[in-house]
Amino acid sequence: MSDPIVTELRDTLDGRWADLRRQAREELSAEWMLAPNGLSIAEHRELTTKSLQRIADEGYGRVGFPTAFGGEFDYAASCVLFEMQALGDLSLLVKVGVQFGLFGGAVARLGTERHHKAYLEDIMTAKLLGSFAMTEVGHGSNVQALETTATYDDSTHELIIDTPTESAVKTYIGNAAKDARMAVVFAQLRTEDGTDGTDGGHRGHGVHAVLVPVRDEAGNPLPGVTIGDNGVKGGLPGVDNGTFAFEQVRVPKDNLLDAFGGIGEDGSYVSSIDNPDRRFFTMLGTLVRGRVCVGGGSGAAAKKALAIAIRYGSSRRQFSAPGAEQENVILDYLAHQRNLLPRLAKAYALSFAQNAVTERLQELQGEGAEPDQEGQRELESRVAGLKAVTTWHALDTIQACREACGGAGYMAENQLVQMHADVDVFATFEGDNTVLLQLAAKGLLTDYKEMWGDLDAMGMVGKIAGQLGDRLVERTAGRAGLQRLIDTATGRDDDSATDSLSWALSMFEQRAEHVLETLGNRLRKATKDNAFELFNAAQDHVLFAARAHIDRCVLEAALEAHEGMTAGAAKDLLGRVLTLYALSSIEQDKAWFIEHGRINTTRSRAVTASVNDLCRELRPHALTLVDALGIPDELITAPIAQ
Amino acid sequence: MSDPIVTELRDTLDGRWADLRRQAREELSAEWMLAPNGLSIAEHRELTTKSLQRIADEGYGRVGFPTAFGGEFDYAASCVLFEMQALGDLSLLVKVGVQFGLFGGAVARLGTERHHKAYLEDIMTAKLLGSFAMTEVGHGSNVQALETTATYDDSTHELIIDTPTESAVKTYIGNAAKDARMAVVFAQLRTEDGTDGTDGGHRGHGVHAVLVPVRDEAGNPLPGVTIGDNGVKGGLPGVDNGTFAFEQVRVPKDNLLDAFGGIGEDGSYVSSIDNPDRRFFTMLGTLVRGRVCVGGGSGAAAKKALAIAIRYGSSRRQFSAPGAEQENVILDYLAHQRNLLPRLAKAYALSFAQNAVTERLQELQGEGAEPDQEGQRELESRVAGLKAVTTWHALDTIQACREACGGAGYMAENQLVQMHADVDVFATFEGDNTVLLQLAAKGLLTDYKEMWGDLDAMGMVGKIAGQLGDRLVERTAGRAGLQRLIDTATGRDDDSATDSLSWALSMFEQRAEHVLETLGNRLRKATKDNAFELFNAAQDHVLFAARAHIDRCVLEAALEAHEGMTAGAAKDLLGRVLTLYALSSIEQDKAWFIEHGRINTTRSRAVTASVNDLCRELRPHALTLVDALGIPDELITAPIAQ
Repeated sequence: MSDPIVTELRDTLDGRWADLRRQAREELSAEWMLAPNGLSIAEHRELTTKSLQRIADEGYGRVGFPTAFGGEFDYAASCVLFEMQALGDLSLLVKVGVQFGLFGGAVARLGTERHHKAYLEDIMTAKLLGSFAMTEVGHGSNVQALETTATYDDSTHELIIDTPTESAVKTYIGNAAKDARMAVVFAQLRTEDGTDGTDGGHRGHGVHAVLVPVRDEAGNPLPGVTIGDNGVKGGLPGVDNGTFAFEQVRVPKDNLLDAFGGIGEDGSYVSSIDNPDRRFFTMLGTLVRGRVCVGGGSGAAAKKALAIAIRYGSSRRQFSAPGAEQENVILDYLAHQRNLLPRLAKAYALSFAQNAVTERLQELQGEGAEPDQEGQRELESRVAGLKAVTTWHALDTIQACREACGGAGYMAENQLVQMHADVDVFATFEGDNTVLLQLAAKGLLTDYKEMWGDLDAMGMVGKIAGQLGDRLVERTAGRAGLQRLIDTATGRDDDSATDSLSWALSMFEQRAEHVLETLGNRLRKATKDNAFELFNAAQDHVLFAARAHIDRCVLEAALEAHEGMTAGAAKDLLGRVLTLYALSSIEQDKAWFIEHGRINTTRSRAVTASVNDLCRELRPHALTLVDALGIPDELITAPIAQ
Repeated sequence: MSDPIVTELRDTLDGRWADLRRQAREELSAEWMLAPNGLSIAEHRELTTKSLQRIADEGYGRVGFPTAFGGEFDYAASCVLFEMQALGDLSLLVKVGVQFGLFGGAVARLGTERHHKAYLEDIMTAKLLGSFAMTEVGHGSNVQALETTATYDDSTHELIIDTPTESAVKTYIGNAAKDARMAVVFAQLRTEDGTDGTDGGHRGHGVHAVLVPVRDEAGNPLPGVTIGDNGVKGGLPGVDNGTFAFEQVRVPKDNLLDAFGGIGEDGSYVSSIDNPDRRFFTMLGTLVRGRVCVGGGSGAAAKKALAIAIRYGSSRRQFSAPGAEQENVILDYLAHQRNLLPRLAKAYALSFAQNAVTERLQELQGEGAEPDQEGQRELESRVAGLKAVTTWHALDTIQACREACGGAGYMAENQLVQMHADVDVFATFEGDNTVLLQLAAKGLLTDYKEMWGDLDAMGMVGKIAGQLGDRLVERTAGRAGLQRLIDTATGRDDDSATDSLSWALSMFEQRAEHVLETLGNRLRKATKDNAFELFNAAQDHVLFAARAHIDRCVLEAALEAHEGMTAGAAKDLLGRVLTLYALSSIEQDKAWFIEHGRINTTRSRAVTASVNDLCRELRPHALTLVDALGIPDELITAPIAQ
């Protein structure tokens, strides 16, 4: 850490919760953060439960919970902690995420004071282990269609939890197979009030969450609860994913997590939000932190993979130039640089975008935050897209790192293969990436205040905002730090140096705006009869619009952080890293830029040449850039990276 | 199989060894071809050894060995069998490949009659299990730099096998950790004859292969042999990869596999090939079958993944159109089609290219084949590139299939995740893909007869063939079946329908030729002083040239098979599949096509629209196309694909 460039870059990457990151770097010990290779599933699960307890014993379970109930560091800090914990065993990370984030977070955010008093202390200390039981066999992405029922029996003041069909069985539920004593069960809430005799004499209020005890103190399933084990998965061997089925299981009505809708003294349903769709998405919106964490965690894992591969690439030699005494260091080959350095640059850029959504989450949901519905919807939309982009980046990067290390990369001891296997599921859990990108696009197309309803075709095409352009301009202009950059680029695209950041930013903005505008024009033609066909035919356009938007958010966040640095060598170096990120993205879409008259073919070729030049320029700084990622040496045990 | 379109497509895909494929479909039983999930490594290894024995007992060990020594079906048929076996557990596949292909193949091809008589029967029956010990800790891709020595002691007529350094330890060697009793050890051969006193009084003859007993009958390492275990890997848990180190281990000189170079009665080195580089690459060239197999095996695995994901996508429902009674089938979404159908189309196209190299291998190396050095070099070059393209296609496809199946895709029982973990290493073993693509490019740039020497910069840039264009034209014209197609396309690129196969072929040819020509012009400027820098700066160009060439070979092979079909519904369907393959490839490189004036931006957009149209058109045929892949139902146990 004596290199001042490393220190300055690290501080810039660390952002607002730098102190928590530093504390974690010192305290998160490899002794209990890492798992040995080759454990059986039973052994790995056992170890993970033990390490979860250790993390709670160290007090880390308290990060992110309300301070009034013994929590620490306030809400969004837990996302930063999650990133740091992602540098260890990812089974432990997910177990931690299930216990404190999903289970604990649902109790904290969907529950009210009586739940907080009764459960939070035991949750933070891991005395009460729990599950977050949302997904069902037949219902993954489309949560509104869940079939599990929670029917209110006013005669006993109880809710009856039931699994009516095979497709309603809860599945892939973390903590279920072995540890959970309680579960937050998402179910269709039904009451008797105001019934018109249909629906079995009940009125449905949509999906709500209910606390359901699932095991007794001895660990046996409670009566009416059938628990299954999902068995062997692609990764995360230490996480006990399983299934829950409920047969008329009765719980007190107080177990309903009723922050957004509850049952009154008279047995009737009460909620401050009348529209059921809006209520549902407001409830889900409070859980956006899970997606922030998954994005951040996968991004952190990708950084660790890059650290391993770049260290190896800086020492491994293969093939010699004629007359040379030694073989060449493989990172001196352009192909190797091309494989690793643009991905390293993207890892940097994504870090800043991750910091930005974490800070925004704190502003909107931290203690004392004022409700801001429009801000909340914008955040949800951005987080959905960023989660998709970051988890795919992580999968792609870890795989590239694995291959860049050859046979050695395939050995478990070098830490890359288990990481890929673990991160794999991040692309489809906490929201399937393809669905999330569509959600992000939807947020751009519709006014945020209209954004209720899920991803059915009409929801997407029905309420397209009138003035897309205006809103985007407004959003960008809000970022004063970037205004200078934007100004310098305007109108002189062809004159700017290819490696100018202001030119790149202008390209990112033009891409995002044009793709969105043309998408809006396309979807505006929808009628009730053709909505699905029209939407479906444009689905690739929808996904591209979302990605282009997120790429722009990423570059903007990165450039804001860069602008905030003091002029000097570290800032210059980061500038080149971000230029590599930006040009790689432009290169990837260069057909689009040519097709839409944004660059000519001469410039298009120059972009590729600049990417190569930047790889060459950054090569001597590769180890510096890796050091600045701040991964504790203790957690990099790969023999090839020592 | 009653659908005549399925039958006709399957027969077309099956190609020359259709009878062997049919036999394998009937006889390769799930009972011993599949492994349960969740085995410990020890259990999986044990099972794999048992299943290997079973395969030998069924007589499949004989496929590919010389009929004079009890072999069957002749040489290249073993590649077809390997493809079929890749539909089962891939640990077993690799174990089979190590025993019969690498170990047995080396004895058959590098050894002479005394080795064949002594060992082949026991190898084919798996009575003698063995290893192929080439890779060393410090020497993966650059095999010529191996450090292990085989020093001839004329006083005892023995070879002394020695591991002089840590980096010379043999590693990642299949069969080593548990089963091998013998190993083909690649080592620097040294003799005493003609020594000038340097090199410890020995003369070096380059890398040769020696049969070295490594374990006694009881399974214990023999004196001087240290055996290690590579332990947990990213996949292939049933394969016992390990390490060998030798301390002055003596074996009779008869153990030298001396087909290309041996030790005479007088203790001096004798070889029919004077140039040591040429000798080395001739020896390696006889082992090209391994790469043919790895490509074919990974391609077969990708087909199985596609079958699982497409079957699931054809029944899984999520999200409903407004007013619809049921949710939509997910394969009806364009995004889902886009994820799966172009990959299915590529799987088809690659099958034909795989058949073509297998047939060519038989012509060049089958029994009774006449030596054809130029043909052999062309095959090696094509196989190198095709192996890279196919293994990457497989990794990418299996991952896309896994994600397309959501959480279910992550469950081991659905057969996708272990497949990805297993195939992963295919990208870097039997030649690292990036290195192999460079080898393929080198074959194109230099006259095949000059193609000796490895991938150092001078080797690549030193001997660029004078008339690249001529040679390419000649090669293409040799394929009479395609001439008609080529003719119809010539000179009317902009008039052709975007979905015309002849236009697509013309694009593939223009891409391959132009990229190669410009690469040649670039590298021709090399001098002794700048060769490395020049080569390195062009490395991305080199890789692109190789890929463009292979893509062209793939399309040509596929179109030849298509041309050979009788007109009708099956031929029409395959035509559309191949068009989707071709247009997806053009779409991927469309920036290049625009930059180089091959298409204008209007046409470029039309390509994307055509890909979408073809996805929609092929959607109703997806299950037919999957059935035609001919994967035995018994081997698809994934619950989601039933």
